[in-house]
Amino acid sequence: MTEHHGYTPQKDALARRMKRIEGQVRGIARMIDEDKYCIDILTQVSAATAALHAVSINLLEEHIAHCVVDAAGSGEDAAREKIEEASAAIARLIKS
Amino acid sequence: MTEHHGYTPQKDALARRMKRIEGQVRGIARMIDEDKYCIDILTQVSAATAALHAVSINLLEEHIAHCVVDAAGSGEDAAREKIEEASAAIARLIKS
Amino acid sequence: MTEHHGYTPQKDALARRMKRIEGQVRGIARMIDEDKYCIDILTQVSAATAALHAVSINLLEEHIAHCVVDAAGSGEDAAREKIEEASAAIARLIKS
Amino acid sequence: MTEHHGYTPQKDALARRMKRIEGQVRGIARMIDEDKYCIDILTQVSAATAALHAVSINLLEEHIAHCVVDAAGSGEDAAREKIEEASAAIARLIKS
Repeated sequence: MTEHHGYTPQKDALARRMKRIEGQVRGIARMIDEDKYCIDILTQVSAATAALHAVSINLLEEHIAHCVVDAAGSGEDAAREKIEEASAAIARLIKS
Repeated sequence: MTEHHGYTPQKDALARRMKRIEGQVRGIARMIDEDKYCIDILTQVSAATAALHAVSINLLEEHIAHCVVDAAGSGEDAAREKIEEASAAIARLIKS
Repeated sequence: MTEHHGYTPQKDALARRMKRIEGQVRGIARMIDEDKYCIDILTQVSAATAALHAVSINLLEEHIAHCVVDAAGSGEDAAREKIEEASAAIARLIKS
Repeated sequence: MTEHHGYTPQKDALARRMKRIEGQVRGIARMIDEDKYCIDILTQVSAATAALHAVSINLLEEHIAHCVVDAAGSGEDAAREKIEEASAAIARLIKS
């Protein structure tokens, strides 16, 4: 039996999105290999970063909706721990 | 003959960095597939985003050092155009 | 009677932090007025932005710990609405 | 005699923008004092951060157009130093 997480119901959609991001990253490598113009490469890097950010916002939303809300049901300390962990993850995202 | 860009002397190093980022993205997809904990996945997403940002700062630096500085040599209008283009790329990065 | 929010217990600390950020912003204006070096001004702008981000992470943490967790207690729909609202706020922060 | 920088011709416009940002920051402090809803405060924090980012992109653009381009005129080493300094400033902005 595998563990269940907030994002579990969306696993297939997330897998497809990660596949697409992998393709974007490979496309950037190819642009560098083919000596494309720097600014065009940067535009693709921004697109890949934005796609990764969108995935993380999705993961966070489901994490709060499930893990945090569930923890809240089992007591204030459990909830506080989960919320601090989520805040630290948000801070890392903003700074990345 | 291929075109020469600011990043050309670093093409091999950039290719290796992009390979590593591709591996990070594939690793995130695997973590989702293996039902890893959301926060651990988010940590890896932040790491991949930070690595993409580092590549773009590198590309920008070489772009300014070569394309912008060269354009400055061929006149003020040429330089201004390149600088506005670079600024727009920086703005996209900050917002991505 | 005033409304109670997640951040209410920290109002004094938040007020002091906002005062300090206001001082940072005024300091940047003064640096521009006194013709300081661009890069030194940019360093202070980054510091002010980081301070604003720190305030928002704090507000978000308290929002999740109180408003979202409370909403979770009054039903799944109420919780989902609050969580989507929080996610949208996180997305705006990342893009700002 | 005061020093001349890239942003000098725009000093008045920048002063007005910083005044407006100062007002935004003071507005956020007031919202906290008046117990406004967390998400509405976060929206204003994102707006202030975006305004600070816009100022920094402007400062960077003028810095590159003047200080960096001028340094390029006085030799490769001088230019490289200025460009590394600008890159470090961009990196700080992205991470702030």
